[in-house]
Amino acid sequence: MANLQLYSYYRSSCSYRVRIALNLKNLAYETVPVHLVRDGGQQHQAAYRERNPMRQVPTLVVGDDSIGQSMAIIEYLEQVHPEPALFPKDPVAAAKVRAFCEMINAGIQPVQNLSVLLYLENEMGATGKRGKWGNYWIHRGFEALEQSLQHSAGRFCFGDTVTAADCFLIPQVYNALRFKVDMAQFPTIARINETCLAMEAFDAATPANQPDTPADYGS
Amino acid sequence: MANLQLYSYYRSSCSYRVRIALNLKNLAYETVPVHLVRDGGQQHQAAYRERNPMRQVPTLVVGDDSIGQSMAIIEYLEQVHPEPALFPKDPVAAAKVRAFCEMINAGIQPVQNLSVLLYLENEMGATGKRGKWGNYWIHRGFEALEQSLQHSAGRFCFGDTVTAADCFLIPQVYNALRFKVDMAQFPTIARINETCLAMEAFDAATPANQPDTPADYGS
Repeated sequence: MANLQLYSYYRSSCSYRVRIALNLKNLAYETVPVHLVRDGGQQHQAAYRERNPMRQVPTLVVGDDSIGQSMAIIEYLEQVHPEPALFPKDPVAAAKVRAFCEMINAGIQPVQNLSVLLYLENEMGATGKRGKWGNYWIHRGFEALEQSLQHSAGRFCFGDTVTAADCFLIPQVYNALRFKVDMAQFPTIARINETCLAMEAFDAATPANQPDTPADYGS
Repeated sequence: MANLQLYSYYRSSCSYRVRIALNLKNLAYETVPVHLVRDGGQQHQAAYRERNPMRQVPTLVVGDDSIGQSMAIIEYLEQVHPEPALFPKDPVAAAKVRAFCEMINAGIQPVQNLSVLLYLENEMGATGKRGKWGNYWIHRGFEALEQSLQHSAGRFCFGDTVTAADCFLIPQVYNALRFKVDMAQFPTIARINETCLAMEAFDAATPANQPDTPADYGS
């Protein structure tokens, strides 16, 4: 039995980040699917809420402990399994990688997540506007990421070594495509996305390749 | 001249987090005010955008380097100035503190920040609904924080030692009060807020006590 259990939803970009990090560090884990739509959202059920009070995926279970929040999980993995490293050793360089991750983690994704879209449409009278909303926030965030990458990118977000920044960027591109963001405007992001998706650690983590991916996915 | 410059706005909860952390670590810094409303928002000006592509405060300037995102800044301060520590030494305990911070950093604050409120009212047809929106997301988030604190709180969020979790919680309570969240429903949060605000490091960081606090603040 695996030592690590990941409560995950195939299409959740936050789960996808952690799956990439686990794969990059060659850590075996067991997926426990949490369906965010079925049964009114399985993340709202009492047993899951006890593990994750925010009612979000992912949650990493390590022994008797549940750790929520993708960034906290990735920092934990880095601390306990330091190689291969996902953050540079130099503190300023590490801070820049963390800031890039947070631009996505705290700046883009939270505003376009499912619970926000549902409340926007159901309680704010913005019926049918979730597409415009999600597209706007991702586009605005990608302008910042693309600008930031002009100072840091090599083959990956920070030079020629994979970092946590790539673990956050690639799932956000997946969301961007769902919201029909025109990636031609973000050539550096698009190029890094292609480079990463050609790697096994990223490919195995994609929504298409999960135990809970529906049989008709992509059709 | 101070070694550290903090681009900050007195009322920004994300700036407030970093001010607390700097004070707890006894680090002197120079405040560079960025007014988020005046001049159409000074964070949108080209010179600032070069430092912070997301056009957000805070930004910490260290020598020639600009570090954005409050969580990245606090992790940097912890790495370079480890004492007094804001994260526990044990990796699982540290992960739980980080997850708590992220519940606020990525789960609550981004959905109620100024740019989201403006877009909601101006582009989604939800005129006059920013209060309901902000209140809803903070209330929902505080339910999760209050539940989480039942397992961890002592005098502070995690036992009897101040951690980064307190640096995130207290500014979010400030926002909660602006959005008229009924704090009587969150007795643990309210109690920790009182305890922290009685401490000099927190008091000196409040919106009331900044170089850019308007003269008529609170009147």
